[in-house]
Amino acid sequence: MATPPFGPPPHLLTPPARIGAVLFDAYGTLFDVHSVGQLAGQLFPGHGEALTQLWRDKQIEYTRLVTMSSGGAEHYRPFWQVTRDALRWSCVRLGLAADAAALERLMDEYRRLRPFAENLEVLRSLKERRTTAGILSNGDPEMLAAVIAHAGFAQLLHPVLSVQSVRRFKTDAAAYALGPAALGLPAREILFVSSNAWDAVGATWFGYTTLWINRSGAPPEELGTSPTHVGNSLHDVLPLLPSSA
Amino acid sequence: MATPPFGPPPHLLTPPARIGAVLFDAYGTLFDVHSVGQLAGQLFPGHGEALTQLWRDKQIEYTRLVTMSSGGAEHYRPFWQVTRDALRWSCVRLGLAADAAALERLMDEYRRLRPFAENLEVLRSLKERRTTAGILSNGDPEMLAAVIAHAGFAQLLHPVLSVQSVRRFKTDAAAYALGPAALGLPAREILFVSSNAWDAVGATWFGYTTLWINRSGAPPEELGTSPTHVGNSLHDVLPLLPSSA
Repeated sequence: MATPPFGPPPHLLTPPARIGAVLFDAYGTLFDVHSVGQLAGQLFPGHGEALTQLWRDKQIEYTRLVTMSSGGAEHYRPFWQVTRDALRWSCVRLGLAADAAALERLMDEYRRLRPFAENLEVLRSLKERRTTAGILSNGDPEMLAAVIAHAGFAQLLHPVLSVQSVRRFKTDAAAYALGPAALGLPAREILFVSSNAWDAVGATWFGYTTLWINRSGAPPEELGTSPTHVGNSLHDVLPLLPSSA
Repeated sequence: MATPPFGPPPHLLTPPARIGAVLFDAYGTLFDVHSVGQLAGQLFPGHGEALTQLWRDKQIEYTRLVTMSSGGAEHYRPFWQVTRDALRWSCVRLGLAADAAALERLMDEYRRLRPFAENLEVLRSLKERRTTAGILSNGDPEMLAAVIAHAGFAQLLHPVLSVQSVRRFKTDAAAYALGPAALGLPAREILFVSSNAWDAVGATWFGYTTLWINRSGAPPEELGTSPTHVGNSLHDVLPLLPSSA
């Protein structure tokens, strides 16, 4: 059976949009979810990497299950809770005896995830250009505010949009719809930037102009749709903006 | 932050339903998706287990992404295609040089997945009791028919319900709704049986009486809802049925 042709991606059929604003995914894109690995390795020697990966995978799985089941909003729970539940499951799965104090310490890391090295410079450039640069994230407003403040990004990112207001996680359309609604721009005039391949594809499906920052050298998703642009660091945002903002 | 109380699961609040029919999940429950591992190991020595696990995870991930994005049906593609796309991605991810012939051979295994050892005896018992026993699966009708015939189960399973008719994969409510519609029974009078923990929880959310066959000794999902029953083989179905069918 041959792979059915999906045709060229939309950006090859229509002229490139003039980008009026940038929205960043938070976890994995601005902030490194794997920066919890150091503490995880201290608490559970030899298991830090496995716990970090399993925790992240389970966290994402739970966002999808609660959103796609029974209409989505009914089973929604805040991302902080999803993240904690995923951590508990992962510790049990790996046979790690995590007491309440250890769970709290790991969860607390989510308030101070390390930003990727190049972010500050790029966000400052966007501010100097007066380009609107915000966040559209699965995270709750409180945890986003904490991690943004910890990184010193509070003056550089606005608006900070959380899916909590619609009780559906990405890649649900209601989550992506927050961007155009808040910015007053059509999705294709917003550059949506994510390091999560699935997020970049979901946003492309929704209609954004997208940049997948492929930090880990992962293969492109086999979903019949490609992100509009692919890069490998936040520096790749700037060349996609109009020369005069 | 304490875990919020969700209250007891529904089956502790209401008397147990009288079960009028049984619906089985197919992949992982009746048929062992890891039975492709042997061929995978022959084709890619030392990588069989990793490929099998990654392929399965990616397959499930893609069912969720296409269903939860933009209303679900718009990005639907048949499970056969999802499975092939997930295989291609997984081979690239693992750096395995899989040519078209290797991909075909691996895909072909999905038409002859090994049933778990106890299944035939349990399905025969259900038939002797004249208990309706069917399938509700993410699989396409063609691939389900092939794997059922290969296992010699064709006379033992009816109806065979595929989500293809609604173009949404489980755990979308439209997929689970196929069961009550086809059987003419309320969901709680149908015993939905799955070895996939997420499927058992999704079906419980929908309203089925559920049995999670925890074949691998996995921890229960931390989703605030438990399957109605938990067992470890298909034998655990029979004691849940009324003594006279």
